[in-house]
Amino acid sequence: MSKEYERYREHMAEIRALNSAQGLLSWDQETYMPVDGLSARAESRAVLSGLVHDRTVDEGFGDLLAALAAADLDATSAANVRETIRDRDRAVKVPRELVTELARVTTLAQQAWVKARETDDWPLFSPLLAEVLELRRRQADALGYVSEPYDALLDEYEPGADSEQIAAVFADLRAQLIPLVAAIGDAGPREDVLARRRYPEPAQIELSLRVLKAMGFDFRAGRLDKSAHPFTTGISARDVRLTSHYDEGDLAKSLYSTIHEGGHGLYEQGLPLAEAGLPLGEAVSLGIHESQSRLWENQVGRSRVFVDWLMPQLRELFPGVLDDVDPDGFHRAVNIVRPSLIRIEADEVTYNLHIILRMELERALLRGDLEVDDLPGQWNERMAADLGVSPGNDAEGVLQDIHWSFGLFGYFPTYALGNLYAAQLFATARDELDGLDDRIARGDFLPLLEWMREKIHVHGRRHTAGELCRLATGRDLDSRPFLDHLNRKFGALYNLPTGDVRA
Amino acid sequence: MSKEYERYREHMAEIRALNSAQGLLSWDQETYMPVDGLSARAESRAVLSGLVHDRTVDEGFGDLLAALAAADLDATSAANVRETIRDRDRAVKVPRELVTELARVTTLAQQAWVKARETDDWPLFSPLLAEVLELRRRQADALGYVSEPYDALLDEYEPGADSEQIAAVFADLRAQLIPLVAAIGDAGPREDVLARRRYPEPAQIELSLRVLKAMGFDFRAGRLDKSAHPFTTGISARDVRLTSHYDEGDLAKSLYSTIHEGGHGLYEQGLPLAEAGLPLGEAVSLGIHESQSRLWENQVGRSRVFVDWLMPQLRELFPGVLDDVDPDGFHRAVNIVRPSLIRIEADEVTYNLHIILRMELERALLRGDLEVDDLPGQWNERMAADLGVSPGNDAEGVLQDIHWSFGLFGYFPTYALGNLYAAQLFATARDELDGLDDRIARGDFLPLLEWMREKIHVHGRRHTAGELCRLATGRDLDSRPFLDHLNRKFGALYNLPTGDVRA
Repeated sequence: MSKEYERYREHMAEIRALNSAQGLLSWDQETYMPVDGLSARAESRAVLSGLVHDRTVDEGFGDLLAALAAADLDATSAANVRETIRDRDRAVKVPRELVTELARVTTLAQQAWVKARETDDWPLFSPLLAEVLELRRRQADALGYVSEPYDALLDEYEPGADSEQIAAVFADLRAQLIPLVAAIGDAGPREDVLARRRYPEPAQIELSLRVLKAMGFDFRAGRLDKSAHPFTTGISARDVRLTSHYDEGDLAKSLYSTIHEGGHGLYEQGLPLAEAGLPLGEAVSLGIHESQSRLWENQVGRSRVFVDWLMPQLRELFPGVLDDVDPDGFHRAVNIVRPSLIRIEADEVTYNLHIILRMELERALLRGDLEVDDLPGQWNERMAADLGVSPGNDAEGVLQDIHWSFGLFGYFPTYALGNLYAAQLFATARDELDGLDDRIARGDFLPLLEWMREKIHVHGRRHTAGELCRLATGRDLDSRPFLDHLNRKFGALYNLPTGDVRA
Repeated sequence: MSKEYERYREHMAEIRALNSAQGLLSWDQETYMPVDGLSARAESRAVLSGLVHDRTVDEGFGDLLAALAAADLDATSAANVRETIRDRDRAVKVPRELVTELARVTTLAQQAWVKARETDDWPLFSPLLAEVLELRRRQADALGYVSEPYDALLDEYEPGADSEQIAAVFADLRAQLIPLVAAIGDAGPREDVLARRRYPEPAQIELSLRVLKAMGFDFRAGRLDKSAHPFTTGISARDVRLTSHYDEGDLAKSLYSTIHEGGHGLYEQGLPLAEAGLPLGEAVSLGIHESQSRLWENQVGRSRVFVDWLMPQLRELFPGVLDDVDPDGFHRAVNIVRPSLIRIEADEVTYNLHIILRMELERALLRGDLEVDDLPGQWNERMAADLGVSPGNDAEGVLQDIHWSFGLFGYFPTYALGNLYAAQLFATARDELDGLDDRIARGDFLPLLEWMREKIHVHGRRHTAGELCRLATGRDLDSRPFLDHLNRKFGALYNLPTGDVRA
């Protein structure tokens, strides 16, 4: 059987080489590509995508996988084959013309979305969104599902996840978040002491590099660049590219973007090299990926102990700029809670409410319970109900995110799952690692990284996200650790009466 | 027939997309790739090369080309088909195992070369060089040739060129250069007034960008980065990447590297977009490519009139640094002639002697008239005879260039051809363009660029390099314009007695 497995590895190595090239093409497009390079770039990416698709659905490859599935393999090999079959089945089920049509329509939808958001022109975008939705519904039908079409799409980003189950977790979360947000609101607004200061970009970049090094990001196997929107691309486990963005009036923006992407980057660098290009060398799900970024960004980066380590760095890199700000003041400033219209600007408490709203609307759209035309109205109603704010126009409402123009229905929930996983993992790590808070306060992040390496990173796709959570924390995912974290942290920061909001 | 031509274009578009991705992979490897990314990168590049090869030699594609060759096509389509058949024939003739073996052995040879040059250890490199040579000889046999194996290799870089003919031009050139170098030597050494000053890197980068803009390089369709060795990569005609290198003690180094690469870049940007991915959208030969870089670097950049435009830029960008240097002094400093050991540091006069020596040794190696073991001795003898200098060791002698470790025999002559083409083209442009010198002195480079666009760039591979030269200049390539240029320029700079060296 080892000869067949070797053939399988070779076939996968070719796919990996193509995917790796794809990663670079897309990274470069967002960082260094000259503007006029776009059309040749689009062509290159389309051709490489086609080649990956052809190699994935290849019939001989299917036969090889079937033979391997029936053979007596060691656990690691068997897990690789199992996951590759899963990926191939998904690719085979969707007719090629549907893939092509989706690529075509989403390209148009993206262009329309850019314009529609700029000019606050929902009717420009909505017919294309309806087309995208229809194609994704057909895709869900092709992929198959047990209870609702949304499951088939969610499964692409969070394999093995169940919409009903997630919705139940989210409903509970929402029920607890709304009174917490209200209690914080009652405590009155907080001033942002970091505002109205100037933080030179070179010093912000230096800070980003220092923080990443301290976190354990390996610059022999990665780099940090600038882009309009921060992102992480894993070209290989030994070539992980992060980006951040810089605004000289806003220190927290680059700092927390960098820490967030750094968390993604550490996961990519921690995937086992021996399984590179195979499923066990890949991230298990977007929810788990996001747990790593959120863990570093929020559980670590916005904690009071982290500020103990950070503050001397800031004083050195921004001499004189923060003389009147003490660690408590900094900690308060980066943890201001305020219901707002825009998801990506939301704080730790209100963020998930933005996600829950999107998931509910998406499910209704996919089920056919909600028409695209009624989406802006529903959006605004839900924003008012859950967050108590009303968009002044669609650009800061239903048009704010690019995701739906790409056809990314089922993607948003992974952001909230990431927050929940992060809290549950961090709570467990804190139980298991002696003096974790003290170590963070000293800038010693290695124990936490090693814990994550061992519990999460090295497993790749050996287990599902749910299994991984049980193995790492001893429990199924639930919203309790996250809510405990919020209540403890913001209860103290906002002097909330204990008891009532924790109920 | 238009349906077949359309199929041909589609097939070529796929190859283009892959080559374009290859271009980015190689550019990134030299600019931004983290060190540990190398092994995954090598794998990606090998897989893409294999895919391009497969698509090129594909039998159905061969049949399609044969049908198109027999059909009644317009001149442009016919030229594309003719050149594609040429490329495919070359690819088909070389057995796959030879290609693979060459890739394997040259990888080892490159590693050995790096070490051998570092430690001045010729015996470490020579057995691998002998292997590379043997494989290239077999490749030449597979490709076929009329008079000598060298022709088959040269043909890869300078299609249609003939070794005998080039050797004759070079012999004449050598006969004239040696007395010129001697006469300049007799005039006594010149001091480099630009030495022992500090030119901050950011200002050097700014100068590079300004000069490129003035030359007409389009930054919407290209960029300038840093790398250890300057190079140009055309990812597409609308995405051309240049690099330069910076040394704060050496202004001329970055300035002339940038101008040189800028010349290559202008050629790439000038290739016709309508023929992108087809031979008529590609550079015709390395000699012509080098003519464009040398034209801007030497004919323009090291001319006295160029310094008129440059000097005010320098005074602005390097305030106070060059107060005691006037335009004549600057011009003299960037045109110091001094026989030296290292090709890439050679001046305009002695440079071609380095090339002629290499070509003669290469031909002898390929013919079997020279053994690899005797190469260092021959090298040192020829250096003494032609340039009057003797390498103290092999690292600054036969081991100085990376080319042979890559198997690049037949490549060096294109550098000297570039110098000759540049002089012949520039002399013609100056005849045809009114007041060209005055325009250069004002920084108005557009007429020269437009002349090159019309005479060279837009044709891609429609004509051979030789034909292109005849069409653009009315004559076959010869060394006269180049020698006239040297005699005129250096005769004046070194106050040489007129007459004798121009004979």
